[in-house]
Amino acid sequence: MNVLYLKCVSCGTTYPKNKIIYRCGCGQSLDIVYDYSRIGRKITWQKLRKRKFCHWRYREFYPIENDKNIRTMEEGGTPLIRSSIWCKKLKFDLHFKYEGVNPTGSFKDRGTTVEISKAVEFGAKKLVCASTGNMGASVAAYASRAGLDATIFVPKKTTTSSKINQIVIYGSKIRFIDGDYDAAIAACNKEQKKSNAYLLGDYPYRGEGEKSVSYEIADENGVPDYVICPIGNGTLLGGMWKGFVEMKKTRLTKKLPKIIAVQASGCNTVVSAFNKKINYVEHSEAKTKASAIACGTPLDGLKALHALQQNKGYGIAVSDKEMLSAQRMLSREGVYAEMSGAATFAALLKTRNKIRKNSKIVLIATGHGLKDV
Amino acid sequence: MNVLYLKCVSCGTTYPKNKIIYRCGCGQSLDIVYDYSRIGRKITWQKLRKRKFCHWRYREFYPIENDKNIRTMEEGGTPLIRSSIWCKKLKFDLHFKYEGVNPTGSFKDRGTTVEISKAVEFGAKKLVCASTGNMGASVAAYASRAGLDATIFVPKKTTTSSKINQIVIYGSKIRFIDGDYDAAIAACNKEQKKSNAYLLGDYPYRGEGEKSVSYEIADENGVPDYVICPIGNGTLLGGMWKGFVEMKKTRLTKKLPKIIAVQASGCNTVVSAFNKKINYVEHSEAKTKASAIACGTPLDGLKALHALQQNKGYGIAVSDKEMLSAQRMLSREGVYAEMSGAATFAALLKTRNKIRKNSKIVLIATGHGLKDV
Repeated sequence: MNVLYLKCVSCGTTYPKNKIIYRCGCGQSLDIVYDYSRIGRKITWQKLRKRKFCHWRYREFYPIENDKNIRTMEEGGTPLIRSSIWCKKLKFDLHFKYEGVNPTGSFKDRGTTVEISKAVEFGAKKLVCASTGNMGASVAAYASRAGLDATIFVPKKTTTSSKINQIVIYGSKIRFIDGDYDAAIAACNKEQKKSNAYLLGDYPYRGEGEKSVSYEIADENGVPDYVICPIGNGTLLGGMWKGFVEMKKTRLTKKLPKIIAVQASGCNTVVSAFNKKINYVEHSEAKTKASAIACGTPLDGLKALHALQQNKGYGIAVSDKEMLSAQRMLSREGVYAEMSGAATFAALLKTRNKIRKNSKIVLIATGHGLKDV
Repeated sequence: MNVLYLKCVSCGTTYPKNKIIYRCGCGQSLDIVYDYSRIGRKITWQKLRKRKFCHWRYREFYPIENDKNIRTMEEGGTPLIRSSIWCKKLKFDLHFKYEGVNPTGSFKDRGTTVEISKAVEFGAKKLVCASTGNMGASVAAYASRAGLDATIFVPKKTTTSSKINQIVIYGSKIRFIDGDYDAAIAACNKEQKKSNAYLLGDYPYRGEGEKSVSYEIADENGVPDYVICPIGNGTLLGGMWKGFVEMKKTRLTKKLPKIIAVQASGCNTVVSAFNKKINYVEHSEAKTKASAIACGTPLDGLKALHALQQNKGYGIAVSDKEMLSAQRMLSREGVYAEMSGAATFAALLKTRNKIRKNSKIVLIATGHGLKDV
């Protein structure tokens, strides 16, 4: 209801909102542009807080035209857990946004509820999706609920057995692809062109759902000084930053947080582009065991890079060894995150001397550790 | 603050609230008795709803004397997911209370946050606990956060590798016991007597935490016509029923739901006592692969039996095959529950002809399917 049009993040071409479109003709990501003065007139925290604390509390910021198309499992509303051990040791006001506590065990459910609702709105029946595992599990669950037929393309090499098991039990077809996530995307796109199925993944609507992590953080505990967020395809980071900017535009908040982006050393495409001060994201091999961020050609890499540039934040690469060690340390707080989620804590340990003491910091722990098994 | 004393569910002996006590001298479970007229004067839904929707929203009903002792991870506040497929097929208003969406992946976190807070209140430093896996994982997480030293006794035979992995990574010591859950309890009790450690498990304080599942159900969607709940040790069912009764006593609700209890056919101690109309729970071998309800001598079996008797509800036993089939069917709704959680859906399928059409039914899906791997 509040969407104006879609716009390419690179060349600026615009597209009408009622057309199914995944990427710009130039090959780059599309952003969804809203009428923020209209949204701002309609909402206040007081109004929003009358609704249940979960993803759909903030429904004015999502691109669904008609509420009857919404398909939800009350995703979001995840705990913002205050550190009990590391607050004292590191002298920060440290919180973990624990996204493992979502129906399918990762933040992907925020994107999927919006993406599947939009697919229903567009009248889609057959879906295809390439995934390193978390997105596939999430899409499989929501597709079954919505009565849609989904096929998930996963790279045999990097997807964990827990995630494969989820995709199968939720009731999607699974296609194992030799090679990495890029190969799975290629196979999925080929199938989409052949069958004219609806394409799900890190395309315009998903990031709109993943924005909600920022609304919830601000809603529960105010805008922090820093948010530390991992980059896989860059959709979460791009969406989260957009969410904070939207809250400022609609006068829900005044402050913006500083963003620290984290990638695996073996696949640090966006961080390296940011550090080199270039305006494009190069391809990299995905040399990491952190399956959820093993994306050699991040689909929303440019969105994430732009977010970092606008924010004047910075990026950090961490090794698999550092992630595994951070995973253990984080678990001692009761927060068992998958490697990619624990990457944020590894990054904090690396960059802590650059951060003022007593800063309010939120780490996004993107998926449950049970998914790494 | 609102607790009066502890009272044996069998012989009625009372104990003062400021004494560490696990079970009555007669060997039976203890119940905690509150001053409900005091609680009723202090709370209304309107007041409660100003607090975040999670377990501690209902703190007046918990036996913690001083708020500074509370150790929490914002557990609870789990989704009450409306069935999209089975509502139509079975013609019920069917909802799943999805307890897999808790920090450690099961309803146990509700009990653990209260139990650990109470342990902190009593000044405990060393903890011991026997568990089929879920409780152990939960205790391990909260103990680490609270800086307490915990040892978990698990039966090698029935505990899944996911749960063992959780206990270890959260930072507890683990002791594998040959034999079943009863053997783990015996070993744990022996160690407790030797070391004078604080004993956690299905003792008075845990059930007080697990009550919150009923407050949340009533809070979000009113009191349903039926609640279907599995029995392992019987603590959840006993606690849940107590919660509904408490809401009636404090005038938060007028209605009480009908309770349907579910056990595994290979371990149906309480259901069989209820059907035989006897007032004690016999021992059974634990012949089921549903690890979380493989309890041959349910510690709170009498509490659960009394709840069923008072409620005039009924019990159902389901086979492992029926649970596995129900698990797959439930997953098609996006609700991936461990076998013991899916047992409730198996029970509904078995008893559906006894239930009036359009009834509002809540199934408690106790743990995440990722824990069965």
